[in-house]
Amino acid sequence: MKYKKVSILGVGLIGGSLGRDLLKKGLAGEVAGWGRCQQRLDKAVKAGACSSAVTSMMEVLKGADVVILCTPVEIIAKHLREIGPLVKEGALLMDVGSVKESIVDTAAGAGLISAGKEFVGTHPMAGSEKSGVESSREGLFRGAPCIITPHKKNSPSAIEKAVQFWKELDAKVIQMTPAQHDLTVGFVSHLPHIVSTVLSKVCGGSLENIEDAAIAAGPSFSDLTRIAGASPQLWSQIYLQNRDQVLKAVDEFLNSLKDFKKILKKTTEKRLSVL
Amino acid sequence: MKYKKVSILGVGLIGGSLGRDLLKKGLAGEVAGWGRCQQRLDKAVKAGACSSAVTSMMEVLKGADVVILCTPVEIIAKHLREIGPLVKEGALLMDVGSVKESIVDTAAGAGLISAGKEFVGTHPMAGSEKSGVESSREGLFRGAPCIITPHKKNSPSAIEKAVQFWKELDAKVIQMTPAQHDLTVGFVSHLPHIVSTVLSKVCGGSLENIEDAAIAAGPSFSDLTRIAGASPQLWSQIYLQNRDQVLKAVDEFLNSLKDFKKILKKTTEKRLSVL
Repeated sequence: MKYKKVSILGVGLIGGSLGRDLLKKGLAGEVAGWGRCQQRLDKAVKAGACSSAVTSMMEVLKGADVVILCTPVEIIAKHLREIGPLVKEGALLMDVGSVKESIVDTAAGAGLISAGKEFVGTHPMAGSEKSGVESSREGLFRGAPCIITPHKKNSPSAIEKAVQFWKELDAKVIQMTPAQHDLTVGFVSHLPHIVSTVLSKVCGGSLENIEDAAIAAGPSFSDLTRIAGASPQLWSQIYLQNRDQVLKAVDEFLNSLKDFKKILKKTTEKRLSVL
Repeated sequence: MKYKKVSILGVGLIGGSLGRDLLKKGLAGEVAGWGRCQQRLDKAVKAGACSSAVTSMMEVLKGADVVILCTPVEIIAKHLREIGPLVKEGALLMDVGSVKESIVDTAAGAGLISAGKEFVGTHPMAGSEKSGVESSREGLFRGAPCIITPHKKNSPSAIEKAVQFWKELDAKVIQMTPAQHDLTVGFVSHLPHIVSTVLSKVCGGSLENIEDAAIAAGPSFSDLTRIAGASPQLWSQIYLQNRDQVLKAVDEFLNSLKDFKKILKKTTEKRLSVL
């Protein structure tokens, strides 16, 4: 057993899947969950997503070796400021938020990047268009990318601990600066979600016989629009938290699509030079 | 055995898969392939994609009950004008082109939509990012949509024969006018391909460490960009043949994405109203 107690704040799809793996693999003696609603927490314990669960932040953090913030991305910064005084010396703190620079900066500002209690930003890129502990499962992180985004003041030993933690869950661990992370996911994750959402909307709004259109659409279309079904609330937060990088990615996409349009409109060649 | 002789013009991914199914299911006594290169045709026969194959249009069409044009979409109209005098009375002619109005109009203009020799436009929406007879396979049309696009002068019996033909290959058959078809596929097939291509390009061009970006990209990104790998030559033809409808779809998409951008840029809400 590697960790005596791991505390998970927010036992939803990601937090719940983390808990299942930590328990199933025997990596943690105790997985303590935290959330706002005891009834939902009891469900999480029953489902095997954690071994205990409480609504008291003080109690859940008591004695934890590892604390992982799995709450919605807009609340992570708030929680980071709150938990500092409550965690024990030597604890490793991590989050799973899908934007990193603002979160890592908040941790630094709260004195949580230093020897003793140390925060390392991490982003496991796993999940699905579903949410909630009902959708959590064992092995969610197996083969999934996990981006570790060290702050320049993070200690090598804390970074290494974070890397090991995610490797034990079989994630493909890579490292980037928080800024590189936000730019990269803006392009390869957030932009595709936006494009998928817009595509679904445009097709739904422009075709009369939507039943026949759905049959005609075929598998390529399903691939492209599957992620458009993801939670609007969750994705609103992600886009807003990473607004500058997302706007940059959207602008690049708009420019490139306008170029395509211009060429398609005017070309007299048999081969579109833009493809 | 339902057909004595079926002739397939163009024995590539679609034509070759058609031939395999017709022979395997015992629907055709002979599947005669036509192409420009005898060496490639011999390969197709060896692969089981047709039972004989020649480069002579006159010979391949002689005595055929069913003729299917599987040549590139830009050449179908040309072939339609050529084959009229060469096919026997009572033959059913079909194509598999991914645009329909121009092709069906050409057939009508060539006197091929009338009792006797009758053309019915069809579009099986199957395939992959690959091409060529090497990629052809049995069962390609199983469960795939196939859109039949009758001309207003087509006889009910010819339409019914075309419907039965594709049903025997286990396709999901639907009917639309040629114009409805072109608009629908412009939105649900051509637009997604364009979006996928632009997305790949934009991400490739904007990120420095493309190896890490590829790892970070994860499965959603693969779903979105898989089809961007399809043949530029083939898709140039498709976009150009369906230029007006594709431009319409691209415009709708651009407008919708610009709206999204405007809202993301200015909103002070926690939930984006556009999602």
